Amino acid sequence: MKKLITLFIILLTLNVVGQEVARVEPPNWWAGMKNPDLQLLIYGENISKTDVVLDYPGVTLEATTKVENPNYLFVDLKLAKNVKPGDFEIQFKQGDKVVDSYNYELWDREKGSAKREGFNSSDVIYLITPDRFVNGDTSNDEVEGMKEGLDRDYNYGRHGGDIRGIINSLDYLQDMGFTAVWLNPVLENDMPESSYHGYACTDFYQVDRRYGSNEEYQELNEELDKRGMKLIMDLIFNHCGSEHWWMHDMPMSDWINNYPEMKITSHRRTVNEDPHASEADKKAMVDGWFVSAMPDMNQKNPFLAKYLIQNSIWWVEYVGLEGIRQDTWPYPDKNMMSDWTKQLLEEYPNFNVVGEEWTTNPAIVSYWQKGKYNQDGYKNYAPSMMDFPLQSAAAEGLRNEESFDFGLIQIYNALANDFLYPNPYDLTIFPDNHDMSRFYVQVGEDADLLKMGVVFFLTTRGIPQIYYGTEILMRHDGSEHGDIRADYPGGWEGDKINAFTGEGMSDAAKDMQQYVSKIQNWRKNADVVHDGKLMHFVPEDGTYTYFRYTEDEAVMVILNKNAEAKTIKTDRFSEVIDGYKSGKEIIYGNTISDISEVTVPAKSAIIVELNK
Amino acid sequence: MKKLITLFIILLTLNVVGQEVARVEPPNWWAGMKNPDLQLLIYGENISKTDVVLDYPGVTLEATTKVENPNYLFVDLKLAKNVKPGDFEIQFKQGDKVVDSYNYELWDREKGSAKREGFNSSDVIYLITPDRFVNGDTSNDEVEGMKEGLDRDYNYGRHGGDIRGIINSLDYLQDMGFTAVWLNPVLENDMPESSYHGYACTDFYQVDRRYGSNEEYQELNEELDKRGMKLIMDLIFNHCGSEHWWMHDMPMSDWINNYPEMKITSHRRTVNEDPHASEADKKAMVDGWFVSAMPDMNQKNPFLAKYLIQNSIWWVEYVGLEGIRQDTWPYPDKNMMSDWTKQLLEEYPNFNVVGEEWTTNPAIVSYWQKGKYNQDGYKNYAPSMMDFPLQSAAAEGLRNEESFDFGLIQIYNALANDFLYPNPYDLTIFPDNHDMSRFYVQVGEDADLLKMGVVFFLTTRGIPQIYYGTEILMRHDGSEHGDIRADYPGGWEGDKINAFTGEGMSDAAKDMQQYVSKIQNWRKNADVVHDGKLMHFVPEDGTYTYFRYTEDEAVMVILNKNAEAKTIKTDRFSEVIDGYKSGKEIIYGNTISDISEVTVPAKSAIIVELNK
Repeated sequence: MKKLITLFIILLTLNVVGQEVARVEPPNWWAGMKNPDLQLLIYGENISKTDVVLDYPGVTLEATTKVENPNYLFVDLKLAKNVKPGDFEIQFKQGDKVVDSYNYELWDREKGSAKREGFNSSDVIYLITPDRFVNGDTSNDEVEGMKEGLDRDYNYGRHGGDIRGIINSLDYLQDMGFTAVWLNPVLENDMPESSYHGYACTDFYQVDRRYGSNEEYQELNEELDKRGMKLIMDLIFNHCGSEHWWMHDMPMSDWINNYPEMKITSHRRTVNEDPHASEADKKAMVDGWFVSAMPDMNQKNPFLAKYLIQNSIWWVEYVGLEGIRQDTWPYPDKNMMSDWTKQLLEEYPNFNVVGEEWTTNPAIVSYWQKGKYNQDGYKNYAPSMMDFPLQSAAAEGLRNEESFDFGLIQIYNALANDFLYPNPYDLTIFPDNHDMSRFYVQVGEDADLLKMGVVFFLTTRGIPQIYYGTEILMRHDGSEHGDIRADYPGGWEGDKINAFTGEGMSDAAKDMQQYVSKIQNWRKNADVVHDGKLMHFVPEDGTYTYFRYTEDEAVMVILNKNAEAKTIKTDRFSEVIDGYKSGKEIIYGNTISDISEVTVPAKSAIIVELNK
Repeated sequence: MKKLITLFIILLTLNVVGQEVARVEPPNWWAGMKNPDLQLLIYGENISKTDVVLDYPGVTLEATTKVENPNYLFVDLKLAKNVKPGDFEIQFKQGDKVVDSYNYELWDREKGSAKREGFNSSDVIYLITPDRFVNGDTSNDEVEGMKEGLDRDYNYGRHGGDIRGIINSLDYLQDMGFTAVWLNPVLENDMPESSYHGYACTDFYQVDRRYGSNEEYQELNEELDKRGMKLIMDLIFNHCGSEHWWMHDMPMSDWINNYPEMKITSHRRTVNEDPHASEADKKAMVDGWFVSAMPDMNQKNPFLAKYLIQNSIWWVEYVGLEGIRQDTWPYPDKNMMSDWTKQLLEEYPNFNVVGEEWTTNPAIVSYWQKGKYNQDGYKNYAPSMMDFPLQSAAAEGLRNEESFDFGLIQIYNALANDFLYPNPYDLTIFPDNHDMSRFYVQVGEDADLLKMGVVFFLTTRGIPQIYYGTEILMRHDGSEHGDIRADYPGGWEGDKINAFTGEGMSDAAKDMQQYVSKIQNWRKNADVVHDGKLMHFVPEDGTYTYFRYTEDEAVMVILNKNAEAKTIKTDRFSEVIDGYKSGKEIIYGNTISDISEVTVPAKSAIIVELNK
């Protein structure tokens, strides 16, 4: 009975055709995809007791598969290479009687869709927690029928930020020099509590209506496109929310791991690589639930695997994404993760995917990157990975006192480990993100050290990502996630401080904002930072010097951690500096007529474009 | 004039033929080597002004090369495959006049020499600092004309230990269950001070006469062979001693790096792997001197490279070695190190070489192992490397309190990194060595923890090596090298404590000695520990369980760090334990009739042979 009620509610709340079919997913597809296969999940009461019929030139019904639960049917279609955009009726018949039908649409692809260019080292990514950035539409703060309403006073409550707010802020972000936006997950999280973070999806084809509509998400991308900016979507293949619609009427008994009994993962992530790991420990890690509100999806189930892979491609096409950030990377079945990145990259060869494996061990991060040779033969195709080891080294390297083994040498040593990566230049690098203390807090709330960190992440190898608020010195007293993901000042009507207008901002925050803006706007056109090689020199006397260089260009960056200015003789760098005579420092704006000696102010960084 | 005097002294002290030729190195060679090429270094006053003539069937004079210093001549010979053992005169002529000659001998190889089996995972290696183990021959405590005499009261002085002492102790070592011996360097170190450690070689073809003669070194190997034991030689390609004979009359200006001005190495060892390292930093690391008494040899010089490679092969053949331990692995030119291991392994395919790269970063250690795929294309052929990361993890894992990230999990995580190695089973593993505090000290002088460490290193994957004295609980108050490398009790006449007879030993030391002996003697025949795979399980409740197993056999090891006994249910291990019913614990000797539950005494380890 409970199932029936749930189904009834779904029928009421979804735009479906007919009585039996509650869901068809993906709800539409595109003509002209490289992969000719398409598998539809059909959900409806006793839908498996119907026969599926369709008739459209170039579309072949390959198979229908009934599974344990009669309310599910999986329909395999093959689309001919030359299939035309259009729509056709999928009929569900019992004998001769059509009991229901669904109008399936094959859309025309955007021009150049397959060749879309993913985010890359020419970009600076702005990471936004959508609930906490800007409330651009108060009408969606609470949505009828959704479980959690507004509670701005509660650090784990919903604060009302939304897609409209982000759209409204794009001029600011563009002015600041950001060229890409990664939003923490925007899909529906109709969970009773803590739904603001978005990592407990309850519908893989629906933007959370408290953030806006699917169409508004498209609009965001269009507005980004107008500004030459890119959009990165946050996806989670490991788990869904415990209130996901299928949790109330499971398609198969192996759809969710450790269900109905629930086991939390061991979080012993090394089992993915460890040649000595037991199967028992692998299972305890990979099949355990991330937390109790997040059922662990079984990606070994081929229908679920296909569902997730198609879902990701659907969003790329539907919204026009330039990248995907995949959450909790080491927790899903690793072979499925490999199939996914392979298929995604086959469909979009220049696309980008960045995975989150939170470890300070670069060997483990490198295990996943496209092109890596692993002893065990495992191959993934993710072009990028989040560079957690460098994040940690940068914070420690700036925070720690200088000695033989500590301080800037930690940053140098972290980069030395780049020999592990097939392509270190494609790693995504970041001072902080939504899961950790802000970098400013990590370096002891020392704005000078934060500035040095910003310069480092914006000029070393990789694709920099900045967490919203880092550019205005956001801090936090508490260290809970809800504290770190605080509201962006100026995002709510009546905010006393407004980072968009400068109103009420401290001088220090304004200074940081201008500092970040200056460097990022310079970086936009600094091809040598986008594409040049990195060469760095062993830190000496509390200073660290490195270069980004091509055959024709070179930029010199020097970090000086000392409490006094340092003058650096540059003859030690002759192998890269030879032929260059003068330079222009881009933060302070001064010209250096003779680069044989360069002075770096106390506790700061300089960026010098070298001239021949 | 100084040069002449030096040469005169050398002439007096060496067994040379004639007036002009002071040295021919290698002093002899063997017929039937795989590599047909042999390059002789000829040293003698104005030797380059002579013509070299020889006549022996199967020996072709390919080239003679004069270098900067006229006192050196390099002679390239080619030996035919079927060249017969024998001797021939190398004549040095000026015009028609033979000014000197050298009787060069081609020796017959020992049968099976090429196929000799190196040390491997069936072995337990005993590492001895020869000056500090047993003084078996007091007549060589001081040697006429050598710079440093006896000073047993000084921690960095010579204490008189020698090869005769080691020969005299072999029955003890065999009884203890050791199957291989690695001696810290035994070649001549005629240095004015701290010569006891042996790492400042002054003659690459001469055993230090305070340790004994070349013939005694051969005798040591013969005595080891009789007992089925193996010998590992410690070589240093990076540097020689500042009193090496050639330092007084350098063959070429590029024979030694940074000479005559001296620069200490930066010790920034990551430059070998770092793709972003500058050439300047590589040079500062690789070409710098290890310490001021150890000139940095330039292995890029092809004559020096050949000299060192041939020297190592000479010792293998001359003594009958089963292995080489190479010091300061990352400091010499890495391409020469690759040439060396390649040529050595081509000559002896089953030989073993273990390199010392002291880092806790397994990615760096793995870079050097034979079979490793490196992104930069670099290949080395060393079958083994010293597993410093595991050493460090074991000490920390035993010492630290248990928590999610600390304690036994550190050992588990270190082994999880084995995915980096082409063959982790061939790594050489050790609780301690001559360069670090004794493991007993590292674990807070807790004999129970040391025992657990011993069990771990004797049963996990790899080739275990134990530093002399660890088996009798040797400790040290000071942490200087000279303190750690203390005299073995009973090695000197009049010692109040004698570890060979048990006289004066504490109960705790005796207990440890018996403990180590029992496990090592069991290990001798425990094929499953030599060849079996490792499977380990995530530590739980302060216990760590792992298995060594083949298709037919399994051994279960459990470490229990708790202050109380722990009973472990073994159903979690079913994937490896299935089919086994009972077991025999080998340390305490008890039989376990039902292995579904196993009890481990407080703060200890058990080793259980499983039976079907």
